[in-house]
Amino acid sequence: MTVSSPLFTDLYQLTMMQGYHAHGLHREEAVFDLYFRKPPFRGGFAVWAGLEPALDLLEGLHFSEDDLAYLDSLGLFRPDFLDALRGWRFRGRVTAFREGSVVFPHEPLLTVKAPLWEAQLVETALLNVLNFQTLVATKAARCVLAAEASPYGGQIVEFGARRAQGPDGAVSAARAAFVGGAVGTSNVESGRLFGLPLTGTHAHAWVESFPDELTAFRAYAALYPDATTLLLDTVDTLRSGLPNALKVARELRAAGHELRGVRLDSGDLAYLSCRIRAALDEAGFPEVKIVASNDLSESVIASVIAEGGRVDVYGVGTQLATAGGEGGGALGGVFKLAQLGGVPKMKLTGDPAKSSLPGEKRVWRAADGDGTFALDVLTLGEKPRAGQQVSDPTNPLRSSRLPEGLTWADAREVVLEDGRRTGPAETLGEAQARARADLARLPAGTRRPLNPHLYRVSLGEDVAALRDRIAGELRAHLGA
Amino acid sequence: MTVSSPLFTDLYQLTMMQGYHAHGLHREEAVFDLYFRKPPFRGGFAVWAGLEPALDLLEGLHFSEDDLAYLDSLGLFRPDFLDALRGWRFRGRVTAFREGSVVFPHEPLLTVKAPLWEAQLVETALLNVLNFQTLVATKAARCVLAAEASPYGGQIVEFGARRAQGPDGAVSAARAAFVGGAVGTSNVESGRLFGLPLTGTHAHAWVESFPDELTAFRAYAALYPDATTLLLDTVDTLRSGLPNALKVARELRAAGHELRGVRLDSGDLAYLSCRIRAALDEAGFPEVKIVASNDLSESVIASVIAEGGRVDVYGVGTQLATAGGEGGGALGGVFKLAQLGGVPKMKLTGDPAKSSLPGEKRVWRAADGDGTFALDVLTLGEKPRAGQQVSDPTNPLRSSRLPEGLTWADAREVVLEDGRRTGPAETLGEAQARARADLARLPAGTRRPLNPHLYRVSLGEDVAALRDRIAGELRAHLGA
Repeated sequence: MTVSSPLFTDLYQLTMMQGYHAHGLHREEAVFDLYFRKPPFRGGFAVWAGLEPALDLLEGLHFSEDDLAYLDSLGLFRPDFLDALRGWRFRGRVTAFREGSVVFPHEPLLTVKAPLWEAQLVETALLNVLNFQTLVATKAARCVLAAEASPYGGQIVEFGARRAQGPDGAVSAARAAFVGGAVGTSNVESGRLFGLPLTGTHAHAWVESFPDELTAFRAYAALYPDATTLLLDTVDTLRSGLPNALKVARELRAAGHELRGVRLDSGDLAYLSCRIRAALDEAGFPEVKIVASNDLSESVIASVIAEGGRVDVYGVGTQLATAGGEGGGALGGVFKLAQLGGVPKMKLTGDPAKSSLPGEKRVWRAADGDGTFALDVLTLGEKPRAGQQVSDPTNPLRSSRLPEGLTWADAREVVLEDGRRTGPAETLGEAQARARADLARLPAGTRRPLNPHLYRVSLGEDVAALRDRIAGELRAHLGA
Repeated sequence: MTVSSPLFTDLYQLTMMQGYHAHGLHREEAVFDLYFRKPPFRGGFAVWAGLEPALDLLEGLHFSEDDLAYLDSLGLFRPDFLDALRGWRFRGRVTAFREGSVVFPHEPLLTVKAPLWEAQLVETALLNVLNFQTLVATKAARCVLAAEASPYGGQIVEFGARRAQGPDGAVSAARAAFVGGAVGTSNVESGRLFGLPLTGTHAHAWVESFPDELTAFRAYAALYPDATTLLLDTVDTLRSGLPNALKVARELRAAGHELRGVRLDSGDLAYLSCRIRAALDEAGFPEVKIVASNDLSESVIASVIAEGGRVDVYGVGTQLATAGGEGGGALGGVFKLAQLGGVPKMKLTGDPAKSSLPGEKRVWRAADGDGTFALDVLTLGEKPRAGQQVSDPTNPLRSSRLPEGLTWADAREVVLEDGRRTGPAETLGEAQARARADLARLPAGTRRPLNPHLYRVSLGEDVAALRDRIAGELRAHLGA
């Protein structure tokens, strides 16, 4: 995969690296924070994903002779710099949320503390991997929450390889969707790479390849008597697909097997799934699952359920694999310098919302008495205490005092030290379980898909004071 | 890259392959058409891209012993089928538009004629590669058309790796953006893989790593005296960035060099670019380019130009690499069976817009006297003639007669025969030149970014008659 190449980076990272090297700044200890400013999909949270692949990347990064020869060919790099890249590796510390954690705007999700030229190089690749996987895991979680709102339950499977943004986009999406709660994928390569459960039915072309639909259904069931899901809409869902599927279900049962499911891929999914559920139940097949596809999203799923639909498994394709929909498509995560050589740093810019937060910060998460998450607070280290003043990261006028009765936890862990993992990589099952547990601890208003209650991420007094001091110095320097 | 794996496919392609094999259908000659139903971005056209990578994929596809072992582990596949996959390769013919061609809904962009089990396997990977690259090339073309509308001209560079959907998403996007008219990319790996021009400036972190902005600018210019573009907004664009950049421009000139450019990354790009252009011109630096970034898209570019902005180079990131915006994110290309064993096939479904077009079709493109594209017509082979009746693919009631005076060309070529390319792979430069030429031949109304005139793709009488006959037979079978 391309991402293991140190050249998977923006050109300016390399020209700056050479510059740091030339000015003797390259070994200055830098602290960079990775964070986003707005939750995706106009929602209230994100599900953090992609950490383990990002750590794989950091552990494996090195410059091959081919890499150096290509850089040399660009005419921008001096021999002493290219020499210095031989034997280069990432030796930093990474502190991060574990995958599957529910996370919020403005808090550092991952902090790199490393020699400046190491931290600078990895920005592009870290953002690429973490932005996308977090986006897809969040989309999957939103679909799962929508499906589970049905009184009958419902599962999500990822179906989107053919519309995904490149092959790796498909594979990374299948991985991240699983973290967010999808139970499987249709993509075989994703199954192999990550051990994900595979799922599949058959296509319209299968039906068209036989003299008629019933013959096609029988042929498929004969081959996969315990794993057949029949696609109903090649000719006509209710008039042809359904009666033919019922015939095959009876024939399978007579032979000691059970039809696994039927799939709807067009038409009114709420109406059709009700009609089909009733027909299946009446015919004695209450265990046959109804799988639905056709440009699904969390809002389509919610609408199917609101109208009483009886879908058991939602095959979510394009919208999941590309994390589409309003506020989707990309997560705007950034990677900003917070400290260099022990000196806190920030960029001001013309837009206050794009200012960064200086200093080496810790993220504390508070839970109330029943375990529900209450708020997160960033400090320069100390655990927050009741009565302390905290303020909004983008609006200093909004401040409040921390209440009593909260339980505080350090929300992140050191996951890489001297460029090596501090422990074994987590499994995707662990990440998925964490997402499920964290989502259950979200305030209900924050879990809401649209117009959510915005979960509070606040600055401790120390961070706020540091920011105000540095911003003041920068403005003073301007004579403003 | 994952896409070279035959397992980069949906599970059902493999279960169907086994089924075709078991029923002796696998060697039946199948014809599948790849097409889309709606242009992306609510526009009037798409720029076809990704063909050469798709052909690489088809030429290289084979099952390794590892692949077979994984399939065996799934418990779905029989030894005789897995044996048959040893030595399997794609032996079909592919007829397609060349990359960079401007294409429209409902016309077959690529047709696979191959033994059924070969055509079935490749569906997922072909759609993945071609959907995404066509989407991005189209987005790039829209940005290029927007930028070139300025009286001063303007260029597009691709900047989006950090927000792209996976590393391969970034790399494929850089390639496709170049086909659509972008002049370069910031991503080094994309540059290496495809020989694309690389472009870059420096980041805010560079400025923050020095005692002050001027020192940082000087340090960068000293290293890259002929390739320096200075980022102006770390502190304050007009009060700090601009005067410091002017100082460095003068110093460079005194030393026999020229500052290449300045970059804006926040604020009002129209206003700032005018102010900065005036200041640069007044100071004797009319050749210094103004580069702008900050969540650009074709509509933002158009708005900057409409307000008199003076940007020379637009660095388009997220919106280009993820092909975002309304009607973006994914191209809904599909791959549908049109003929099997010489017998035309179609699927009806409940939704007429989702019906497929039967038969082995040829795509003819007509140009009028000045070379402007007039309409495309699908026939079963014959060249269209003036006076013939043609009809709309989705609405049979809309029909007309072909006018005199059109020049007809067969729009596609046989690019693969017996699974091997019929000639050398085209270069990206050729594809980019074709896109430029084709875009210039589009009717102006169709080139319009929003509410375009819909270019006409029509069915010849033979295709329309075939479709009506088969649809009639399918409905008769239903007793409808």
